[in-house]
Amino acid sequence: MNTKKTIQGSIDFKNGCVDLSHGAGGRASAQLIEQLFIAAFANPWLEARNDQACLSIPTTPGRLVISTDAHVISPLFFPGGDIGSLSVHGTINDVAMSGAVPLCLAASFILEEGFPLADLRRIVNSMAQAAQDAGVPIVTGDTKVVERGKGDGVFITTTGTGWVDNSLKISGDQAVPGDVVLVSGYLGDHGIAILAQRENMKFSSPMESDTAALHGLVRDMVSVSQNIHVLRDPTRGGLASTLNEIAHQSGVGICLEESAIPIRDKVAAACEFLGLDPLYIANEGKLICICPAAEAEIILQAMRQHPLGKDAAQIGQVQEDAHCYVQMRTQLGGRRMVDWLAAEQLPRIC
Amino acid sequence: MNTKKTIQGSIDFKNGCVDLSHGAGGRASAQLIEQLFIAAFANPWLEARNDQACLSIPTTPGRLVISTDAHVISPLFFPGGDIGSLSVHGTINDVAMSGAVPLCLAASFILEEGFPLADLRRIVNSMAQAAQDAGVPIVTGDTKVVERGKGDGVFITTTGTGWVDNSLKISGDQAVPGDVVLVSGYLGDHGIAILAQRENMKFSSPMESDTAALHGLVRDMVSVSQNIHVLRDPTRGGLASTLNEIAHQSGVGICLEESAIPIRDKVAAACEFLGLDPLYIANEGKLICICPAAEAEIILQAMRQHPLGKDAAQIGQVQEDAHCYVQMRTQLGGRRMVDWLAAEQLPRIC
Repeated sequence: MNTKKTIQGSIDFKNGCVDLSHGAGGRASAQLIEQLFIAAFANPWLEARNDQACLSIPTTPGRLVISTDAHVISPLFFPGGDIGSLSVHGTINDVAMSGAVPLCLAASFILEEGFPLADLRRIVNSMAQAAQDAGVPIVTGDTKVVERGKGDGVFITTTGTGWVDNSLKISGDQAVPGDVVLVSGYLGDHGIAILAQRENMKFSSPMESDTAALHGLVRDMVSVSQNIHVLRDPTRGGLASTLNEIAHQSGVGICLEESAIPIRDKVAAACEFLGLDPLYIANEGKLICICPAAEAEIILQAMRQHPLGKDAAQIGQVQEDAHCYVQMRTQLGGRRMVDWLAAEQLPRIC
Repeated sequence: MNTKKTIQGSIDFKNGCVDLSHGAGGRASAQLIEQLFIAAFANPWLEARNDQACLSIPTTPGRLVISTDAHVISPLFFPGGDIGSLSVHGTINDVAMSGAVPLCLAASFILEEGFPLADLRRIVNSMAQAAQDAGVPIVTGDTKVVERGKGDGVFITTTGTGWVDNSLKISGDQAVPGDVVLVSGYLGDHGIAILAQRENMKFSSPMESDTAALHGLVRDMVSVSQNIHVLRDPTRGGLASTLNEIAHQSGVGICLEESAIPIRDKVAAACEFLGLDPLYIANEGKLICICPAAEAEIILQAMRQHPLGKDAAQIGQVQEDAHCYVQMRTQLGGRRMVDWLAAEQLPRIC
């Protein structure tokens, strides 16, 4: 059933160089991960191609969950958050997308010589607040300093561990034809907030990042259904790239309903103005859930009762497709392909 | 008994900037960790001030161990290793210094636009080999790319998890007067190898980094004694800074015997030539062990039977001292203070 597809196209390791697309979360990122990291580190956890690894621990009824994320967002401070809160939320979310309860975080800082200590303190305090609000302590860390011009202020890598009961089996390779696709709320807020800050765009009401920790929402969802097949947060590369990843992992096709996808008017307007597609814009406080159609309603109800899921919607369905295509029925009644993000749309969005 | 001492001197968070000393592993690093990170993230795991955190897991007879390390070494390739193998060894060692068996690693990469993919592949293959040799899989990861001039080739943060039985209680705050200090072999090899590469220094025989994974050595040590009080690898800041950290954590003094400290002639010569003190030079494949005097011989025997501990030696003892000073009886019969590393001796050594 799971006819996992590989990403087409070969990387030129002999003469090529890293370019921004390798970090954009689209096709080039997926190629690099597959042709370099998974090939070299060859093990079943990496080959599962999820945003976290789940390890069995003998004599316990659950698995240990581990996820790591480097945060290089620019600017460091943005409406709705900063690199500190983002680094806490981002990793908690990657752990939670296995259905796990996050236990703790580790934080590593790469600081550039000359970075103001007042800014560092502001970022660290923001991390502390985010960790406290989430109930997930930052238990260990590391700090390195590089010379001026060899870094960019501060980069933060956070690594989270969590614990998931063996009754849950949530993974990107579990989607099956007949499943439906849910999303927890409006898409594109984070990316557009960052872009607005960079480009000094003005909105009538301020555009804020949606950065948030989603483990509470996940807890409420798994408490009403133990049959969730896939959870994933559509960060870099947006909804489109995330669904392409899942389609490849599960060996299925996905068809979206454009009219059902929640996108704020101002995000849609900003995308139109900038020539961007909101399906490729990063989110930092949203999740995609793929589940059997029969369970969709009870899961949607649970999502809508949580503040971070109040605008949850069903946006598409999983279907058989040997090509693993993601497609969309447009509002005009047509059908279009929703491909991977091909190049770099918004560098350093997270 | 444990009258933990705080590091003297206040950081100027209002007007100050990050400088290289904040990443050097000496006094400034300790101040930053204490006055910023531990203060903000306030929790018992960070307050333990170890290089890893140990968390109890209900219903199991052990603790989960977590450690993270950012690697920013320059140059990326050096005699005896590269940033890839170093990033695997460094984090395995930090996990192992709790007595734990390392279970898995997470790796996050921050790549600079324009970095040759051939070099990246060489680094990744070196990581894969190091992980395979150590028997510790790299189970999850992340890749980000920053613009040219905003990074420096590649930075790698590795995070390790391990498992330690509750019968072991190894921590930097466990040293007591009467304990002795052991070291697993020659000191200063890593730092001098890096410096020689940077300065294009020539030795009659090549000077190689000692980078190595020490969990096998630790396994052999804890199998002969369950009374080891402290284990720590003297990386940045060298033996001197590491012992000052432990003295402060445990509220004790330490007295070293200069003639007993194993230092290669060529390392001593290079240090003399460069005006450096070998006690402050980084190591990447050595450990310090503090244990009751009565157990020293059996632990030393176990160390010497392992290839990575064959030159192990007893180098000093723990004593009562309200000032938590580290001192050394010199070869000339005098006594001198062995203070924290005050400024930056060798930037980007790991």
